[in-house]
Parts: sequence; C-alpha cells; structure tokens
Amino acid sequence: MERSSIPKATLGRIPRYLTFLKELPLDTVRHISATTISKALNLGEVQVRKDLAMISGAGRPRLGYETEVLIEQLEDCLGYNKLTFAVLVGAGRLGRALLQYDGFEHFGVKIKAAFDSNEQVINLDSKTEILPMNQFELYCKENDISLGIITVGEGSAQVVCDQMVNSGITAIWNFAPCKLQIPDGILLQNENLALSLAHLRNQLSHSGVMLNNKL
Amino acid sequence: MERSSIPKATLGRIPRYLTFLKELPLDTVRHISATTISKALNLGEVQVRKDLAMISGAGRPRLGYETEVLIEQLEDCLGYNKLTFAVLVGAGRLGRALLQYDGFEHFGVKIKAAFDSNEQVINLDSKTEILPMNQFELYCKENDISLGIITVGEGSAQVVCDQMVNSGITAIWNFAPCKLQIPDGILLQNENLALSLAHLRNQLSHSGVMLNNKL
Repeated sequence: MERSSIPKATLGRIPRYLTFLKELPLDTVRHISATTISKALNLGEVQVRKDLAMISGAGRPRLGYETEVLIEQLEDCLGYNKLTFAVLVGAGRLGRALLQYDGFEHFGVKIKAAFDSNEQVINLDSKTEILPMNQFELYCKENDISLGIITVGEGSAQVVCDQMVNSGITAIWNFAPCKLQIPDGILLQNENLALSLAHLRNQLSHSGVMLNNKL
Repeated sequence: MERSSIPKATLGRIPRYLTFLKELPLDTVRHISATTISKALNLGEVQVRKDLAMISGAGRPRLGYETEVLIEQLEDCLGYNKLTFAVLVGAGRLGRALLQYDGFEHFGVKIKAAFDSNEQVINLDSKTEILPMNQFELYCKENDISLGIITVGEGSAQVVCDQMVNSGITAIWNFAPCKLQIPDGILLQNENLALSLAHLRNQLSHSGVMLNNKL
C-alpha cells in the first residue's frame, strides 16, 4: 500500500469541495484555509481539516492550502485524471439500471461494456454496448479492464467471478447475494441491497416510531 | 428505543443460522450451543456467541439455547411474523430492478406498490402495481405503509420525501444522490451506489495491484 485508502464518507464530500473551490477566482484566491471551506459549505471544521489532511497533508500555518494544488489533489482522489475502466456482467434490470446511471464517471469509473449470456439482451436499448460472454476475456485484456461489476444471479456469480479474475480484473463489485471465493490480491466489495433494507426495517422496529403508526 | 437495533453484519448472518436450525430434528435437538452452530457453519465462535447474545440473551450454561425459541427470536429479528410494508417512488430502471428483486421479503419487507409521475410506466411489465402519484398519500394511509423507497432523480427527491413524511412514512431508503431534509423522528438511510464504486476504485488505486496490470 502506498498510502491508506480514503474513507467512503470523505470521498462523498470531495465533489462538494471541488464544486466550491472551482468557483473561486483562482487568480486572487491563491490560498484557502480549512476554516473558510468549512464555513462556506456549512460543514464541521474538524471534519474538513481531517479530510484535507488525509488528501493533501497539513496546510501552511495562516495561509492554508494552495488552491490550485488542492483542486488537483482532490481530483486525483476521484480519479479524474485517470479513469478506471470497468465491465459489468449481467444485463438484467439491475445491470441495465447501473449502466444507465450517470454518477459513476464523476467518481473516476467508466463502465466500458456490459456482457450477458442471454442473446436477447445483447445491445438492448443501452448506451453502453452489451456483448456476448464469449468475447469477455479477450475484451478485458485488450481494454485494460481492472474493475468488474457482477449483476448476475446467485447461481452464476462464482463462475463470472472466476472469469473476471482470469481476465486480469483485480477489483470486483458484487451484487449477487452470495459469498464469492477470490484469490489473494483481488479486492471484493459486496453490495447487498436486501441487507440495507433489512437494516432500515430493523431500526424502524426498534425505534418505537412504528407504534405511532399502529403497525 | 426499546433495545438497540441489530448491526447489519449480524442481520446478514441470521438467514444462515435459520437455515441450519430449521433443518435440525427439533424433537431430539431441543437445545443447541453457540459452539455447535459456529462449527456447523464454519463461523468464528466469538462472533456467533455475540450475535446470539444480542438476539436472544445468554444461553443456559452447558445446555445453550432452546432451539425452538431461538428460531422464533431469529425470525422476529427479520420480521418474519410482521412484514413491514413499503412503497417505492420512481419506477425507472433502478426502481423496477428493485421491484423485481426477490430478496426483500426474506428480510421482512414487502414492497406493496410503486408510484410514478410518468404515466407511461404505470403498470409497465412489473409484478408490483405501479400507480400514479396522485394516489400516493391516500394509498399509504390506507395500507399502513411505514417505509418509503426513493428512486427518483435528484431534482424530485425532496418533494417525494416530503410527500412520504406527510403520508405517515417513518423510514426512508433514499437512492437519489442528494441530501434530504427530514423532520426529527424519521429514519433516513442513503444508498449512494456511485460512492460505493468510488470507494472500491480508490482502494484499487492505493493497493498497488493496478501496477501489475499496467493501468
């Protein structure tokens, strides 16, 4: 590890920092302090200070951060200058919802292509190409794909995962509700939507608010 | 708060506990220990002990838990005996992907209906009815809806959120990439898919594995 990765909450604030900083007249506001940023964005100063320290180190006493340098470092964090290329396998509803979603590129990820074993969805009303699975391995190798998104069902997820690993993919975002076996050195992030909902429901049933609603 | 809510990781293990326990011959296996469960499921004993303590209290020394009682308590946690009714607003691709998803009922949530302001999607190939927004408030009140899922765009999310609160909904699962203003006493869980992906990408770029892939 070169340096530790940035926590999710911090990553989530970076777009707000960038929006604010990029609107400043850079020729006059050459330096900016964490205090100024925190006030402008109505965020806690300690939080902003911590976020910026993680991304850019300590600012200079009294001066703060060099505005242009800070912008560059924040953009680097989001991969602005180096898009990560991803593929998605499983072009069902969830898969196609993700393909249609515009937000990923703001965070440095571009889904270059999707794959499906069902010929009926190949190139079905999608702005991203949907290709047949037999082109998967070659495509990944030729296009420097490092990130794979799994949106197939539970039954095919491990097979797809193995194909991704064999194709040089080193980070996997898995939406299938199952535990995948991966070799060392591969990053895996499981997204269990049902579990998120279960968590909310469970909080609801323990918060007492339900009583007010006779449920 | 009656008691604190159950952590997400614990909730995620409950279906595995239940599957195992329900396959036991209950007339002979009247009691079961955390040790037995942890070995059978290949989980850490400390983890299983903690999970069960949270859900069922301490087991009896040497005997463990009464199997049938434990099954009931685990089912209660997942809301098996008391489904929570939800509605979804925004029947675009993501919304319809969630409607089609089968996993929610295993966790005690039933999406009873979906709503959309676009008449073209009303009742479009979905197993759940999709109704026009003008029926929203009445429907929620008449059907004891306590949980609302927001899958509209950023621009409409706050309006939808306010309508939910006015209709007696007390827990909101928000997929729109924006910060919602909610009154006290309402539970809000934000699901930011782009941020999850950004987090994975960020880990990837700091793990050094990318270097091996010339990306």
